[in-house]
Amino acid sequence: MKYCSECGADVEFQVPPGDERQRYVCSRCGYIHYQNPRLVVGSLPIWEDRILLCRRAIEPRYGLWTLPAGFMELGETTLEAATRETREEARARIHIDGLYVVINLPEVNQVYMMFRAELLDLDFSPGTESLEVKLCTEDEIPWNELAFGTIRHTLNHYFLDRRAGLYPLHLGDIVKDGEHYVYRSFC
Amino acid sequence: MKYCSECGADVEFQVPPGDERQRYVCSRCGYIHYQNPRLVVGSLPIWEDRILLCRRAIEPRYGLWTLPAGFMELGETTLEAATRETREEARARIHIDGLYVVINLPEVNQVYMMFRAELLDLDFSPGTESLEVKLCTEDEIPWNELAFGTIRHTLNHYFLDRRAGLYPLHLGDIVKDGEHYVYRSFC
Repeated sequence: MKYCSECGADVEFQVPPGDERQRYVCSRCGYIHYQNPRLVVGSLPIWEDRILLCRRAIEPRYGLWTLPAGFMELGETTLEAATRETREEARARIHIDGLYVVINLPEVNQVYMMFRAELLDLDFSPGTESLEVKLCTEDEIPWNELAFGTIRHTLNHYFLDRRAGLYPLHLGDIVKDGEHYVYRSFC
Repeated sequence: MKYCSECGADVEFQVPPGDERQRYVCSRCGYIHYQNPRLVVGSLPIWEDRILLCRRAIEPRYGLWTLPAGFMELGETTLEAATRETREEARARIHIDGLYVVINLPEVNQVYMMFRAELLDLDFSPGTESLEVKLCTEDEIPWNELAFGTIRHTLNHYFLDRRAGLYPLHLGDIVKDGEHYVYRSFC
């Protein structure tokens, strides 16, 4: 951020009075431009023993597999966001059963919220952001070609929980530990 | 938003190619300024049969009572945000038990995430954003002087759940219905 979106003057990165963090503050009108993490919301669409996956037609991770998910938009709820992303990326219709996985990614300022969902019918097809959409059993999941750690951990939780028949909420963080990213599961 | 924060030129509110929503797009450098909902993260600090409440020393809702909560900051996790807000607003230390309430407020582009927590000791006091901090039993909660609907619904869920001794995750929305705001509970 270089310029104030309200008046066009230069911004300075400084601690405003009464604050403890550096913010972008306008040098002319004084507007404080707060920045906050973004929510990535998606679904785990289930049909019998299979999960609906999408192969990405966009960067980042073009060609790799993911669950339908994307940035939450203004004016919608998290359930609406999960339903919309599933419709847009997989042209699929779901019934949401509940919030299933919340993963923090503090290094990239994102919070993932993944909802467990029933796929309502087999009428699905790739949306503009997908190359391919398919249903996979646990053995068919392309574990080495998944786009994001958040997706791998969501699928891992699901296949483990399915054995017990219980689907508690999972909370975790993906954080940098030296050179690598590690998953810390809170519950 | 009137000016591009990257180059300072005018922005136009238009649908970018391949998109379905209007965004602020720079008329000179073409930068698309996406806007997304913000997370408000907080805690429900519990000590025996009492809950820690803070009386707000800031607008909006100056003088009314709330649970410790605030906008999640860049670089932190939701648990860290809940812990920090509790420390800042009530100078209190907590142990977080789990995610308890998620409430969407699509009209104001916020998602509340409230964590159930144990207050670790009685060493608390008002932070700079609070006038007063106190522990309240259910009967002592100032129900008519609560700052936000999200706080009232979180407290309602808690006192009902406490009777059953079970604390499932609650998901809901606060949405406009005619002149009034109503709470729709998903689970």
